[in-house]
Amino acid sequence: MPSSFGTTLRVTVFGQSHSEGIGCVVEGLPAGFGVDLDALAAFMARRAPGQGPWSTPRKEPDAVRVLSGLNVQGETCGAPLALAIMNTNTRSRDYDNLLAVPRPGHADFTAWAKWHGSQDVPGGGHFSGRLTAPLCAAGGIALQLLEEKGVRIRSHLAQVGSVRDERFSALDNSPESARALASQMERLATASPLPTIDPEVGRAMLDEIESARRDLDSVGGLVECVCCGLPAGVGSPMFDGIENTIARAAFGIPAVKGIEFGAGFGVAAMRGHEDNDPYVVRDGRCAPATNNAGGALGGISTGAPIVFRIAMKPTSSIAREQDSVDLTTMEPAKLRVHGRHDPCVAVRAVPVSEAVCALAVLDSWLSWPPEGEPLSLS
Amino acid sequence: MPSSFGTTLRVTVFGQSHSEGIGCVVEGLPAGFGVDLDALAAFMARRAPGQGPWSTPRKEPDAVRVLSGLNVQGETCGAPLALAIMNTNTRSRDYDNLLAVPRPGHADFTAWAKWHGSQDVPGGGHFSGRLTAPLCAAGGIALQLLEEKGVRIRSHLAQVGSVRDERFSALDNSPESARALASQMERLATASPLPTIDPEVGRAMLDEIESARRDLDSVGGLVECVCCGLPAGVGSPMFDGIENTIARAAFGIPAVKGIEFGAGFGVAAMRGHEDNDPYVVRDGRCAPATNNAGGALGGISTGAPIVFRIAMKPTSSIAREQDSVDLTTMEPAKLRVHGRHDPCVAVRAVPVSEAVCALAVLDSWLSWPPEGEPLSLS
Amino acid sequence: MPSSFGTTLRVTVFGQSHSEGIGCVVEGLPAGFGVDLDALAAFMARRAPGQGPWSTPRKEPDAVRVLSGLNVQGETCGAPLALAIMNTNTRSRDYDNLLAVPRPGHADFTAWAKWHGSQDVPGGGHFSGRLTAPLCAAGGIALQLLEEKGVRIRSHLAQVGSVRDERFSALDNSPESARALASQMERLATASPLPTIDPEVGRAMLDEIESARRDLDSVGGLVECVCCGLPAGVGSPMFDGIENTIARAAFGIPAVKGIEFGAGFGVAAMRGHEDNDPYVVRDGRCAPATNNAGGALGGISTGAPIVFRIAMKPTSSIAREQDSVDLTTMEPAKLRVHGRHDPCVAVRAVPVSEAVCALAVLDSWLSWPPEGEPLSLS
Amino acid sequence: MPSSFGTTLRVTVFGQSHSEGIGCVVEGLPAGFGVDLDALAAFMARRAPGQGPWSTPRKEPDAVRVLSGLNVQGETCGAPLALAIMNTNTRSRDYDNLLAVPRPGHADFTAWAKWHGSQDVPGGGHFSGRLTAPLCAAGGIALQLLEEKGVRIRSHLAQVGSVRDERFSALDNSPESARALASQMERLATASPLPTIDPEVGRAMLDEIESARRDLDSVGGLVECVCCGLPAGVGSPMFDGIENTIARAAFGIPAVKGIEFGAGFGVAAMRGHEDNDPYVVRDGRCAPATNNAGGALGGISTGAPIVFRIAMKPTSSIAREQDSVDLTTMEPAKLRVHGRHDPCVAVRAVPVSEAVCALAVLDSWLSWPPEGEPLSLS
Repeated sequence: MPSSFGTTLRVTVFGQSHSEGIGCVVEGLPAGFGVDLDALAAFMARRAPGQGPWSTPRKEPDAVRVLSGLNVQGETCGAPLALAIMNTNTRSRDYDNLLAVPRPGHADFTAWAKWHGSQDVPGGGHFSGRLTAPLCAAGGIALQLLEEKGVRIRSHLAQVGSVRDERFSALDNSPESARALASQMERLATASPLPTIDPEVGRAMLDEIESARRDLDSVGGLVECVCCGLPAGVGSPMFDGIENTIARAAFGIPAVKGIEFGAGFGVAAMRGHEDNDPYVVRDGRCAPATNNAGGALGGISTGAPIVFRIAMKPTSSIAREQDSVDLTTMEPAKLRVHGRHDPCVAVRAVPVSEAVCALAVLDSWLSWPPEGEPLSLS
Repeated sequence: MPSSFGTTLRVTVFGQSHSEGIGCVVEGLPAGFGVDLDALAAFMARRAPGQGPWSTPRKEPDAVRVLSGLNVQGETCGAPLALAIMNTNTRSRDYDNLLAVPRPGHADFTAWAKWHGSQDVPGGGHFSGRLTAPLCAAGGIALQLLEEKGVRIRSHLAQVGSVRDERFSALDNSPESARALASQMERLATASPLPTIDPEVGRAMLDEIESARRDLDSVGGLVECVCCGLPAGVGSPMFDGIENTIARAAFGIPAVKGIEFGAGFGVAAMRGHEDNDPYVVRDGRCAPATNNAGGALGGISTGAPIVFRIAMKPTSSIAREQDSVDLTTMEPAKLRVHGRHDPCVAVRAVPVSEAVCALAVLDSWLSWPPEGEPLSLS
Repeated sequence: MPSSFGTTLRVTVFGQSHSEGIGCVVEGLPAGFGVDLDALAAFMARRAPGQGPWSTPRKEPDAVRVLSGLNVQGETCGAPLALAIMNTNTRSRDYDNLLAVPRPGHADFTAWAKWHGSQDVPGGGHFSGRLTAPLCAAGGIALQLLEEKGVRIRSHLAQVGSVRDERFSALDNSPESARALASQMERLATASPLPTIDPEVGRAMLDEIESARRDLDSVGGLVECVCCGLPAGVGSPMFDGIENTIARAAFGIPAVKGIEFGAGFGVAAMRGHEDNDPYVVRDGRCAPATNNAGGALGGISTGAPIVFRIAMKPTSSIAREQDSVDLTTMEPAKLRVHGRHDPCVAVRAVPVSEAVCALAVLDSWLSWPPEGEPLSLS
Repeated sequence: MPSSFGTTLRVTVFGQSHSEGIGCVVEGLPAGFGVDLDALAAFMARRAPGQGPWSTPRKEPDAVRVLSGLNVQGETCGAPLALAIMNTNTRSRDYDNLLAVPRPGHADFTAWAKWHGSQDVPGGGHFSGRLTAPLCAAGGIALQLLEEKGVRIRSHLAQVGSVRDERFSALDNSPESARALASQMERLATASPLPTIDPEVGRAMLDEIESARRDLDSVGGLVECVCCGLPAGVGSPMFDGIENTIARAAFGIPAVKGIEFGAGFGVAAMRGHEDNDPYVVRDGRCAPATNNAGGALGGISTGAPIVFRIAMKPTSSIAREQDSVDLTTMEPAKLRVHGRHDPCVAVRAVPVSEAVCALAVLDSWLSWPPEGEPLSLS
């Protein structure tokens, strides 16, 4: 189903940018988990618009209403969790001329080709980046549950335009590397002004974004995500592996154009003896010494961190004039996109990628645990 | 399900490297399609082992037996198509020591972590690259069906180590670019010695592969795939889009570590006005002038070619000595992998990527066609 | 997924009897269908509680809020339709003693065995008959869409205790029988006081129900449903046939204990020449002369009416004293269920069965139409 | 998918009556289970044709070939289990005239309406009762695995025409009733000449069947199935409950027209205080004293036996002349079905119902166990 993903833990996202509400239904959460709604609100705030110069001025409280799925103690109860966020601040008039003239880089044209005019256009409809809010709501709860099981997930803004943050210390799997990674994750918890490991880099990225905005333009970016503490043996061969599951979900984030795990595209130029992660004995157990595999082999977790990067294209909606076509007349048309848009969608994709990773990893763990060792809350 | 993918067209792959047989069941093929079994055999031959210096000496006829799914005229009949390939040439002894000592880069360790010793080890079991043969059998039929509907899919070996082939002329969507692409695809139909657009490059890649083999090593590569002729409006928003579907399937090919569409990871450094594909009127219809999107926006096809690249890691099985762990004693162990292995799995991944692309695209077309315009054989 | 069903048209139901809201998400509706919200409200009213002596005194407006899924013209737009009904009239104290002492015939004990105390108990939680309201909301829209395509669905109360209504004229497939059936369906549109073909029977059933209530008891019933106008060729062999799909969905209605199609359980005592429906030529087309098959052969529609009956057990919640067990002490306990409960759930199951039939038939038509002839709105 | 069912344990059935082979792929079996192939052959023999006067003279060895899914120790290994049965004894000429003239009661007409002539007609194609052989192969393994976990499943021929066997002692849940049921199940293990609890009844049924055959006719029947030993808490609310899952699968058996659980259709005439199963303390645990619920409440097992009955229509293929239509000319036509057919399909449905029950119950247990208590082999 287009708007759903997951095998045991399934998230179904609903809503349009300007519908009465947006939200999601989460099926398959283990029962008895006490959801921390304050922590969830704090996580949602990381994605919320209207936070800085890089962000759209549209302000939405993004308050999550729990319609169902909790018992009177506030714990998951085995029934589907339904979360809703009401749309309160919409300005449909901004989008009037978009009905006829599709925005380059957006789904306006493809939605028209698919639904012949019945699609909901204002604000991007179901394709709007705003639909990542319910993903974050669902994912924020998955993050809480995983944290309780010792799994931590963090993303950072690895690149904006030509400015690059340092990489996660995750391609090595040594104890030293793990300590360095833990320190990076800690720094990210309070990162400012942007979610980068190095604050200097964050400031340079802000300049890059500002420069794009001044040019009535936008800029792309790269988000790197790491997931630590997942035991070995989670996932499945072939089409339900860790990578398949994360990749399918990640391409559900608007603007993602590529994903790579571990050494990623670098493997094309590597020799086998460089890429293969040798095994060592650590604490009496077998572990990969390095982590070019990015935490999964044959779709199954190795116990090393899952690490992946997603490429985010520049925001499609830009204020400068672009060539398009009037679909009602099939004549060329010029387009200038008004409205409120982030010049760099990669920034807000940082918490979204954590949410998606959490949902994919939690689903993998629930669906394909090491045989006979299910994920259990108690 | 781990070994299945697809929504309307579902492929379930079975088999282990050394089981009695391998194969697949394909559900959801439109009825009334006359399968060309000779053309299928020719396609299978492109993937078959034992073809050159870059390939494993294991020779398998890979003859596909159709157990069911065709009527007496040899057409699909609405019932599941079951294809089997018997395993005739297996040498399990080669793998004896692998039961205890996992090969770096392979799924031996993760399968052990998952199944605690019950997994089938010889030849990689269900994780073996040999399991791409049934994928090619299913995909070969999908390719035939798509071709009849005007859709053509071709891959080439874009990179091996440091040697690169020219790219597909697919990031532009002009008529000139389309002609150049058609010519590239034609050249690939008879490419030798390797599936490259430029034969010189193919020879240089062969040297690179030979050099790796001499070093008792292996080398990675990049495969680029293009799909032309798909109409606009195929696919779906969010999690069943063209990219999600291809990505989920592609990570089912052993050794894939990354995938990117259109401008791919390059988007991170791009500005919006560069990346956005403006629309133009062509033959009275709206079309993107360029194709940085790689043929899909919001998960839905634009009518421009679908183009993607997958990164293939070097073959994990290498003959030089590697560090590992004896899982029965949890003591360090040295490992030297015997057996017959391609030093560059990217080569045979070329037809496999075409097969996977065909299955994913055909499934998308059958599942999510432009509203009210189903894919139909007549 | 437990709370979801459907292949192309998928309904995911959420909510508990006493949660903030209940509702559903409907994925896969064809785009461009103008939903008649007034007609939907009228259909919902047929199921609503508080309508007569046979019904629970709990009054719920059951107003359906459309959170998303429609465009600005009020038409389906390709995005998931999210429907919510707020819970406004809940009295949790009624259920306090049920936390420890499970009600016989209810899911209290099995939910406890499954979730070990985390389940939401008040009002039956996710198991409450109130969850049929969102099913009716989704099904009411499916009914509208089917009606536009010439398919009509109607149910009646075929039996309450020992009182039986006449059967639908649907086991014959002659033109005369079709006329008689049409007349029965018309009478049902204005049936009173209960949804029976024969109003006399309705009054007798009311007596039966009143008698049960006076005895602090409840009574079972039988609901018969017919679906006319579905073309031949809809459905699929084996596990996605018309009967499989309806049966799986129908057992999702609380209190259903059996389902039969066409001649149903009567076939056990029949001979082949009696049961087989011979074919005749009608209007130049082949049609079954009789309809013992109940409208489907091999899972695929014959063009004759789909007709089935579901057995509804007596309401589990009865006011008389019953034996149970205190789960906190594992000591025997007596139980008297307070609260507001229909003495005959079969009455309100009449519209619910229409809703479920509509969803199952519409999904079958969308998923498994005659090859190359998809259901289309235009 | 039409030919697949199951959530965690998924069976995909392939084959046509006269294709090269038939079989199935079983995904999701726990790894490490040693399959007893001799016991499987013995189970298959119970369904095999050519065993008595009530059976078709077509003799098929029905030898199951394991193409994949076992390790070298003959244990399940986490990879899909592929089972094939070769078709060796086919007589397509018997079916020549059926291409144009559909057999009443069979799927010939509906398959034609669906696939417009591309369907495989000989022997019923994918609709043939022969396709229950792979179901039995898969189910036979599920039965072995369940038996090891203390779950026993048995069916008997409860009715043929007007002759009825005694019912399973399963609507009571007392220790005495359990002993009586155990004794009935034991008697069934060696039942002769038909799978009835009472051998006298079996002989009378044989007469009924012989009488139908002499009349060039066939006769319907009823099969009752019981499943003992399943713990409480298995299954799920709404659409993935025990009853939904068994019902969906059971309607995949050709000729099934109805299914009922526990008190079944009898509930329509019952009062709540009669139907409700009170709880008692037994061995320090809560248990239902009676079992009108048939072992499930709210879709979740109660710990009492799962008991259900399926109505089997008379064999459609009968030798006497029937009215039909020539689909090539749309003229009335007379039909006399030659070929080899059981006059009572209910007989062979007895082991098939056990197989289907085992698959549905095992899947429910694997997919929806009591929270945190997965089914595990060790």
